Amino acid sequence: MRSFLTADQQARQRDFREFVALYVEPAAAEWDRAQSIPAATVTRMAEAGYLGNMLPVKYDGRGWDTVTFGLLNEAFGRGCPALTDLLTVQAMVSMTLLKWGTDEQKSRWLPPLARGEMIGAFALTEPSGGSHLKSLQTQFTECGDGSYRLNGQKTWISYAQTAGVFLVVGYVDSRPLACLLPRETPGLQVEPITGLLGFRAAGLGRVTFTDVAVPAASLVGKPGTALSYIAPIGLQYGRISTACSALGLVRGCFEEATSRAATRKIGPDTVGSFGMIHSMIAHMGTELEAAGLLCLAACRATDEREPDAFAKALMAKYFASRAAVAAANDAVQIWGGAGCHEDAPVSRYYRDAKIYEIIEGTSQIHEELLSRNFIEAGAKRAAQIR
Amino acid sequence: MRSFLTADQQARQRDFREFVALYVEPAAAEWDRAQSIPAATVTRMAEAGYLGNMLPVKYDGRGWDTVTFGLLNEAFGRGCPALTDLLTVQAMVSMTLLKWGTDEQKSRWLPPLARGEMIGAFALTEPSGGSHLKSLQTQFTECGDGSYRLNGQKTWISYAQTAGVFLVVGYVDSRPLACLLPRETPGLQVEPITGLLGFRAAGLGRVTFTDVAVPAASLVGKPGTALSYIAPIGLQYGRISTACSALGLVRGCFEEATSRAATRKIGPDTVGSFGMIHSMIAHMGTELEAAGLLCLAACRATDEREPDAFAKALMAKYFASRAAVAAANDAVQIWGGAGCHEDAPVSRYYRDAKIYEIIEGTSQIHEELLSRNFIEAGAKRAAQIR
Amino acid sequence: MRSFLTADQQARQRDFREFVALYVEPAAAEWDRAQSIPAATVTRMAEAGYLGNMLPVKYDGRGWDTVTFGLLNEAFGRGCPALTDLLTVQAMVSMTLLKWGTDEQKSRWLPPLARGEMIGAFALTEPSGGSHLKSLQTQFTECGDGSYRLNGQKTWISYAQTAGVFLVVGYVDSRPLACLLPRETPGLQVEPITGLLGFRAAGLGRVTFTDVAVPAASLVGKPGTALSYIAPIGLQYGRISTACSALGLVRGCFEEATSRAATRKIGPDTVGSFGMIHSMIAHMGTELEAAGLLCLAACRATDEREPDAFAKALMAKYFASRAAVAAANDAVQIWGGAGCHEDAPVSRYYRDAKIYEIIEGTSQIHEELLSRNFIEAGAKRAAQIR
Amino acid sequence: MRSFLTADQQARQRDFREFVALYVEPAAAEWDRAQSIPAATVTRMAEAGYLGNMLPVKYDGRGWDTVTFGLLNEAFGRGCPALTDLLTVQAMVSMTLLKWGTDEQKSRWLPPLARGEMIGAFALTEPSGGSHLKSLQTQFTECGDGSYRLNGQKTWISYAQTAGVFLVVGYVDSRPLACLLPRETPGLQVEPITGLLGFRAAGLGRVTFTDVAVPAASLVGKPGTALSYIAPIGLQYGRISTACSALGLVRGCFEEATSRAATRKIGPDTVGSFGMIHSMIAHMGTELEAAGLLCLAACRATDEREPDAFAKALMAKYFASRAAVAAANDAVQIWGGAGCHEDAPVSRYYRDAKIYEIIEGTSQIHEELLSRNFIEAGAKRAAQIR
Repeated sequence: MRSFLTADQQARQRDFREFVALYVEPAAAEWDRAQSIPAATVTRMAEAGYLGNMLPVKYDGRGWDTVTFGLLNEAFGRGCPALTDLLTVQAMVSMTLLKWGTDEQKSRWLPPLARGEMIGAFALTEPSGGSHLKSLQTQFTECGDGSYRLNGQKTWISYAQTAGVFLVVGYVDSRPLACLLPRETPGLQVEPITGLLGFRAAGLGRVTFTDVAVPAASLVGKPGTALSYIAPIGLQYGRISTACSALGLVRGCFEEATSRAATRKIGPDTVGSFGMIHSMIAHMGTELEAAGLLCLAACRATDEREPDAFAKALMAKYFASRAAVAAANDAVQIWGGAGCHEDAPVSRYYRDAKIYEIIEGTSQIHEELLSRNFIEAGAKRAAQIR
Repeated sequence: MRSFLTADQQARQRDFREFVALYVEPAAAEWDRAQSIPAATVTRMAEAGYLGNMLPVKYDGRGWDTVTFGLLNEAFGRGCPALTDLLTVQAMVSMTLLKWGTDEQKSRWLPPLARGEMIGAFALTEPSGGSHLKSLQTQFTECGDGSYRLNGQKTWISYAQTAGVFLVVGYVDSRPLACLLPRETPGLQVEPITGLLGFRAAGLGRVTFTDVAVPAASLVGKPGTALSYIAPIGLQYGRISTACSALGLVRGCFEEATSRAATRKIGPDTVGSFGMIHSMIAHMGTELEAAGLLCLAACRATDEREPDAFAKALMAKYFASRAAVAAANDAVQIWGGAGCHEDAPVSRYYRDAKIYEIIEGTSQIHEELLSRNFIEAGAKRAAQIR
Repeated sequence: MRSFLTADQQARQRDFREFVALYVEPAAAEWDRAQSIPAATVTRMAEAGYLGNMLPVKYDGRGWDTVTFGLLNEAFGRGCPALTDLLTVQAMVSMTLLKWGTDEQKSRWLPPLARGEMIGAFALTEPSGGSHLKSLQTQFTECGDGSYRLNGQKTWISYAQTAGVFLVVGYVDSRPLACLLPRETPGLQVEPITGLLGFRAAGLGRVTFTDVAVPAASLVGKPGTALSYIAPIGLQYGRISTACSALGLVRGCFEEATSRAATRKIGPDTVGSFGMIHSMIAHMGTELEAAGLLCLAACRATDEREPDAFAKALMAKYFASRAAVAAANDAVQIWGGAGCHEDAPVSRYYRDAKIYEIIEGTSQIHEELLSRNFIEAGAKRAAQIR
Repeated sequence: MRSFLTADQQARQRDFREFVALYVEPAAAEWDRAQSIPAATVTRMAEAGYLGNMLPVKYDGRGWDTVTFGLLNEAFGRGCPALTDLLTVQAMVSMTLLKWGTDEQKSRWLPPLARGEMIGAFALTEPSGGSHLKSLQTQFTECGDGSYRLNGQKTWISYAQTAGVFLVVGYVDSRPLACLLPRETPGLQVEPITGLLGFRAAGLGRVTFTDVAVPAASLVGKPGTALSYIAPIGLQYGRISTACSALGLVRGCFEEATSRAATRKIGPDTVGSFGMIHSMIAHMGTELEAAGLLCLAACRATDEREPDAFAKALMAKYFASRAAVAAANDAVQIWGGAGCHEDAPVSRYYRDAKIYEIIEGTSQIHEELLSRNFIEAGAKRAAQIR
């Protein structure tokens, strides 16, 4: 994969991996148990510029490209998927705002987001309906003066527990609408969600809006555009981030599994001398390579604004998240009993991996979207042939 | 499956499932969090006769057959795999003793085991070597008077935390040897293992033997027989119990998934209206049926002392444990976000399921044993044809 | 599996396997190349009573139960799936007629079918619509005197090339209707289909009906009943026969693969000494056992008229057909280059196996039917819990 | 994938696909039936420069890079895998000779190979031993004057039926040795192999050497180098060619499946409206993308002489060949009954796909080689960490 990256991208990749090896990997098990990330870690990421990495320099961001963003997520995914999720939501909110925010909104919110002084949460998913966007029940009511009143509930919102600003999507009548709400907004209430299978430190929460006053200046885009124009920006970066994070976890599984196979003795032989283990490892390493290339292709297509950037992000997320589940499964198996204990990273990977197949659209939603895309192309081909 | 059971077996199956629905399922999540089973629950199981179910009536057991034992494990597996593991180890120790114990050992240990006043732990696995029996490092040293001195360490021992008696296997020189040690034996020390991925309430422990005095009366069988005659009895019941427990978990996943598919709405449609979900559910239901039949066949072959009872138990455990992992994977997927939270049994099932593929011999060890068996038969067939 | 069979069933199983070893296996490759079965082979099967095996003795059948029918199909599937398909269609037509035919129809058609002097073909599938029963386009037109005129086309009809009688399903207006047509009926035309991937010797054909006169005496059942009452009988036996035939192919793959693994040397080692091969063989053998039990359970439920006989036949066919594809895939792999040549039965198995996933309802239709069944049960369970 | 290619590569890819659409796809079914390729087709390929595409211009080749070679193979794989195999063997022989041949050998053999006037066959595999290189039994005997006498047999040799020159590997004592033999060499005999599962038109043969005189000038490299230096060149291009050919077949399956899904009606709905079909198509399309990237990465690494070019080619071949088998399986399923008939390309794809998992090293050999590579890296990582 090296030859597909520029020298700059390679240098940053080394930095990212070093940061993760130093500050993330050693603590990830503890954060998982504590179900939270220490503020000092977030500050350190902020200082490194990671929380505003793709935002333009003029907003105090680093102006990195999507490929570099992907490398960052990959590096963090190997260390702590729950923390990587912070990169996900920060990018979703920041990049949406960069594209669709008013000048005023951008100059107010982007600098603190870019500097990592503030965390953004993407409040889309609801208790009834999961990722089904058309059935959102959060309601904006017009007050007549351009302002709105907001009622509803969001759930499974990553980093809701610490976010300073929420990007919220709901409906005004039948028109989807988005707005940006500071945490301290009256009527906005966050309730932590604990006891999760994986991503336990990702600060998830339920967010309730009770007669929240939404001034016109807080709207992002016009009514009717939130699902077709606004949200897709965030979702694209969300998928890419998740895909690359899952890729990092696959690498983690692969490295842990191959080291174990090389060193752990079962009687006189190493685990890695058994043929069934060969199948698992060959398969895992090949999926790692494939997932890496799919992620790279998705990032690059996004950078180059190619029309198929959407499909490529779907494929990267779909493939990498399933590869993560498979890799974690096999890595635990290769570790044996020890792999079922929290001292082994693979035990945490096993729990975290499954989350990738659920967040940012389940694998089934990805199958739905991808197959629609593919079958439409098939219909065109069929029409040409006739 | 019903028609393969006698009326008695069916009646007991109803009792088992009722017991589990009343006393196990509602509390399983709490036990998982607490990483322990309340003594009252064990007492209730003892009173129902479940802890000595296959032991003869003359030892205060119930004298049930292996098929009924399988139904018991299946019922408990649906509720709480960690608790089912108690049935596993109790049977492993009891049935080994019933077959190979001296009259004195049987009359001393079987009644309290049968009445469930005492729990037995099967201390075979060691830190180095996993399930590789030939590389056990626990050492018996002959004292010259028929007694031995024991040194070594066992790990991943289920219910070590509460067991009253340990069946221990080690080597005297190159001859494998087994003995029975009461918990209070001087030099025997138990250290709890916590922080497990699944089976968190199964009271696992490391057991250390430091110059433990083993009187001749505590030996089970003669030196040289422990791995070829003694342990296989326990392992056979261990595999059957684990297979049936995994089967119960598959049923749990299936019931939770189909109920959710039938009732959970995503927008205007139920989850169960999506075609991809149909594939998952059809597959899960068919694997449930297949696993059930394989378990039944293994139990029945054990009851009838068929020569292929060994291979049938391997197949049942291999198939059911893998089906459990697959079913839990799909059940979480069908539940979506809610399935990743501890309020949903499928979230726990996802963690517990993986353990089945590790304990009582990993899937890879099963592949090794089964393929050897099958290829030997293939060699015979090939020789006949010529 | 043995202990689930009666002594009679076991004895017949031995006969079946002997017959196949003598008369079927040695010639199957040749029949595949020739794309046809010699008449002498059909006669030999007829003489053994195989073509009327479940029909009552009073119609010259053998009166065997469904379990025995399953064993017969399993034995033949190991030898030649294309020929086994003859058992499939013969049973589909015969058993439908036995259940729904008039006394006159039964006494005219059942004896020659039972004696194997005549072959019956089940003409349901149409060019447009595949297995989608509601979109049949074959039309009966009422003539006013109780007779009908039939127009339409059927395709992929097994043994259409040699059948003496066709059971045809179409619609009169919106009511499905079935009739029985002798081959020599004016307006009925059969066109052979050659060039198939598998089941090449199964004498498939397209059957065209052009203004065929259908007297009232040829109708099977009343208008409106053909899809809800008539066809399901045939389809049930069709699925069971196909499931058991696929099971036979899995056994064929398993026997060929294990013999090869035991004897074929790659350098100094046998193929069977490699660990990856162990995984394949353990998996194949376990699927063989599971498929065998599912088939047995489906046959037995059919014999005992259990309400879930339908679901059990679906599961048996779904599982066994997929197991056949997987087993053939692995068997070719274990054979290596030699497995890709027609001299190796596994090469033919690879092509035949895929057909099982298509005929008598594709795997996808099975997923549809099974999941509906399972989700309905899930809905009931969910309703009870509330 | 487009953005990873240069403008030249893209232009050539268009040419290749046009050539295949015009001259290959329409005839592939007929060639499959006839088990041979017409000479006119080979001539047309030769004229287009395809048979010497990577050879330098000074030898009358085109001097294309490996990426372009990959695109050529991908294009042909979509049309006719058996014909693509000609590109495989021609590259294997030519590129080996280019690297290791003497000047005299190069000027004698490379021009006719480059112009496609002559076909080269790579004679490595033997009846006993399959792809196990260390157990080759073909023997060179020294004659004392620098010449050798050759005895032995090779099998499964693609295009042996029409090759003009054979690259043969055997042993002189324990040192592997390679030589180049013209077809007309006395004692060299070719026997066609027919009746194959797939690649039926690839002109396979058994090649027997009976006391063949091998002059010193015919040796390629020195004794001892044939397996460590000579053959690996050919095998690298063989794997890349096979990987890209398999990729082409995956694309064929994908295009045929999506067109069918878009247009074929089952009752009122298209096949593509069913959810299970969505899963299959999403999966197939994603594997197509992943396989494409793996092939590209392998070609590029070969062009850039990266040290991991070997592992990348292994991964590309391993992944693409398995993806081909899976894609063909699903494509037949999506086509239903029609997909089992030779009129449907997917029926042929189903047979051809399996061959990819066998030739140029089985999937199992790939697992062996890859896992060794990966575990060695794991050992190094483990050593660093300590």
